Amino acid sequence: MRAASSAFEALSVRPPHERATLLERCADGLLELGDALIERACLETGLPGARLAAERDRTVAQLRMFAALVRDGSYVEASIDHGDPKRQPTPKPDVRRMLKPLGPVVVFGASNFPLAFSTLGGDSASALAAGCPVVVKGHPAHPGTGELVTDVVVRAAHSLELPAGTFSYLHAGGSREVHVGIELLRHPSTRAAGFTGSLAAGTALARIAAERPEPIPFFAEMGSVNPVFVLPAVLRDRAAAIADALFQSFTNSVGQMCTSPGLVFVPKGEGADRLAAALTQLVRAASSAPMLTPKIRASFTDGVLRLKNVPGVFRLAEVDGEGMNAGPALLATTYEALSREPAIAEEVFGPVLVLVECSHLDELFASAKLVHGSLAAALWMSDDDGPAAHALLARLEKIAGRVIVNGMPTGVEVCASMVHGGPFPATNRPEASAVGASALRRWCRPVAWQNVPDKLLPLELQEANPRKIARVVDGAAVVAPR
Amino acid sequence: MRAASSAFEALSVRPPHERATLLERCADGLLELGDALIERACLETGLPGARLAAERDRTVAQLRMFAALVRDGSYVEASIDHGDPKRQPTPKPDVRRMLKPLGPVVVFGASNFPLAFSTLGGDSASALAAGCPVVVKGHPAHPGTGELVTDVVVRAAHSLELPAGTFSYLHAGGSREVHVGIELLRHPSTRAAGFTGSLAAGTALARIAAERPEPIPFFAEMGSVNPVFVLPAVLRDRAAAIADALFQSFTNSVGQMCTSPGLVFVPKGEGADRLAAALTQLVRAASSAPMLTPKIRASFTDGVLRLKNVPGVFRLAEVDGEGMNAGPALLATTYEALSREPAIAEEVFGPVLVLVECSHLDELFASAKLVHGSLAAALWMSDDDGPAAHALLARLEKIAGRVIVNGMPTGVEVCASMVHGGPFPATNRPEASAVGASALRRWCRPVAWQNVPDKLLPLELQEANPRKIARVVDGAAVVAPR
Repeated sequence: MRAASSAFEALSVRPPHERATLLERCADGLLELGDALIERACLETGLPGARLAAERDRTVAQLRMFAALVRDGSYVEASIDHGDPKRQPTPKPDVRRMLKPLGPVVVFGASNFPLAFSTLGGDSASALAAGCPVVVKGHPAHPGTGELVTDVVVRAAHSLELPAGTFSYLHAGGSREVHVGIELLRHPSTRAAGFTGSLAAGTALARIAAERPEPIPFFAEMGSVNPVFVLPAVLRDRAAAIADALFQSFTNSVGQMCTSPGLVFVPKGEGADRLAAALTQLVRAASSAPMLTPKIRASFTDGVLRLKNVPGVFRLAEVDGEGMNAGPALLATTYEALSREPAIAEEVFGPVLVLVECSHLDELFASAKLVHGSLAAALWMSDDDGPAAHALLARLEKIAGRVIVNGMPTGVEVCASMVHGGPFPATNRPEASAVGASALRRWCRPVAWQNVPDKLLPLELQEANPRKIARVVDGAAVVAPR
Repeated sequence: MRAASSAFEALSVRPPHERATLLERCADGLLELGDALIERACLETGLPGARLAAERDRTVAQLRMFAALVRDGSYVEASIDHGDPKRQPTPKPDVRRMLKPLGPVVVFGASNFPLAFSTLGGDSASALAAGCPVVVKGHPAHPGTGELVTDVVVRAAHSLELPAGTFSYLHAGGSREVHVGIELLRHPSTRAAGFTGSLAAGTALARIAAERPEPIPFFAEMGSVNPVFVLPAVLRDRAAAIADALFQSFTNSVGQMCTSPGLVFVPKGEGADRLAAALTQLVRAASSAPMLTPKIRASFTDGVLRLKNVPGVFRLAEVDGEGMNAGPALLATTYEALSREPAIAEEVFGPVLVLVECSHLDELFASAKLVHGSLAAALWMSDDDGPAAHALLARLEKIAGRVIVNGMPTGVEVCASMVHGGPFPATNRPEASAVGASALRRWCRPVAWQNVPDKLLPLELQEANPRKIARVVDGAAVVAPR
């Protein structure tokens, strides 16, 4: 952390394009690792090679996106309010504003995305892009992958003669794990932290960040049930297609996606019966696959057992798995049972889906209030579902960071308009997104310069606008608060 | 809080221009109160009428600025990423993003700005602008002012047939104060809170917000010493003018401004002696004036005594005040003493200024590291101070939300580029600003709509762009994360 702190001082006076080059060289370096990286990640996570290759490509695309943002520079939201010495009753000062990096960032990577949300995933890439040195608490579920990736970053930083503290990786396995994480979070040089993981760990770390002598921003992405709501008309017409899409989504990567759906709400009736039958058939025909860690594997068994033991919850289909392997589980319950037993709405990490039957549309609407804050919520509808769709969408936008129509929560596009965040417990910071361009903003704070001589201003705010990114706002009230 | 929660549902489906009209009617209503409001505020705060009239005008301007922002609409940062069904290997979904209000907001107003940062100050105005109902924990130091202002808001809301829970005001005096505040903060319907006040209260409330079963965003503006740094050349040429400006700034409103300077760093020598002599003369000629509350008055005496008792701190001049009255105090110390006794750098709320002599420029630079995070930091320089100014400014931007050259920290322009915030302990949320257009963003979170049919999208995101505020970004990586 001390090395990161001194690197922050050094990075502050270096031109932004060096950070862009760093990210680009990291992207190239990850690709150059080729099969060695994918094979190592397969061995450590049990995830299939095709999935990990796609994740690697996504990680590379993220790095390049953040590099492009840094080169463009407009993410700093530079704005210029010219002064007006003649204004009455007091002169208006010249005020200019832009975002500046917070300082050293600690990243707690995720087990389920060993590349895209771990060592050099979205948190690290966006923090480096912002100009913050990064210290990674290495995830013990993929230490070899972490080392391979770290080697890429360290070589890229070295090739640009960036200070050694620009990026650090700490192994944190076994009994060291909690200790290493807490010490990093409590260190006085740490200015912010990002976390992806369980609700219990995220909540505990958030409190540590808040209770420091000097509290720091802590961005946690945690548990999310990502509910799916199916309206009557579409259920009547497309029950089989919806069953297929649901099955693919909740069993994707053995259900170990942060956007995996855990609850599906359907109106009782013939359509719901067909959906349940189709899903049951798909689950029965499914095979088991290895989960990420023994702990996740054990928690999944416990979680499914907990759900099955709730009065009013029934098992429709379940595939057992041996050892590290887990198979999908399909359960069913009713709105009435869910409203009595809120525990049904708590996330179980892994391939389990609970089908919730609602007696009528009002129950479907009301069920949106029984679901905790989620990263994403999906609505299935056809044109005939019009008014009900409108009413339900208005509720879903209040409980999720992203609302999808006729699609599944899994699959997060990396683009400027993406929101990968949401109300608690999906995250502890509903104003933030961990994916997309705005992820960068988490590691920044605004600074204003008042009546500062032009040559002493940051380049981004100088009168000649050499980077062509500053907006002249001149005291207009009507201006997007960029 | 329950009324606010149900008002939030109702407000969500009403057009934004109604909120703008609400704020404009509030602005008109405050002006219509005329002298009655100013007189009541004078009686309750001891602040002079001219100061309060200026504060009223600022409050009115703030309300109109937020109304204009709501009418314009671009603050929601609407962006559209069109889908691309032909993209390989997977189709690109249509993703659209905008900010939505968080829900009921609790406002803890400030004693020192009974209009601009209290009942209907910046926090309440920006939260209402965002579409969040507001519940004010009334400040016991100006209950009558609070009632007059509340009456204006309630009548304006009523004239627009907005729900009663849109705005509420709770008296919270005496032994009720802590209880009322904590209950509001803990209420499950509360979605966010804003606070302006002491470090002790802000820190305690921030922990309560973080330890709720469902943590909520809590924005606290707290203690700030707002240091002033004077470089050698300007001190040689302008010692008397700097003394005048410092005296005006640190005694403004009996030193009860959040941006009041508490520390001034000067290079030892003849210039520093002249500055000290001029300041001493000004302080000795000053009179005392009433402080805001008996508690603030008592804390000021205690704080000055605490400073005077620190080894290496000396009294240059002090004006005593009787009863509620306080006079300014001017103390002196050295960099060496400050580096040994960090307590010297802790804020004392009221008219006290500590002159810190540095033996050489390196001490002046190093002193910036001994100062806590501040709302503002000022640098005095002339052209001959060039290189030193550059080096010092680079340090000041790391410890303050706003950096001023050849001016004083007091006086916060309400404009788009303003930052009224800063690192801890100035605030607990360095990414936020309590003044200016971006204050609105504190009460919002982003939501993304994926593949949602056009007619079911919010107006701001529909393809025809009827509000003319959405930016089409179409997956470009290079886009400001608005």
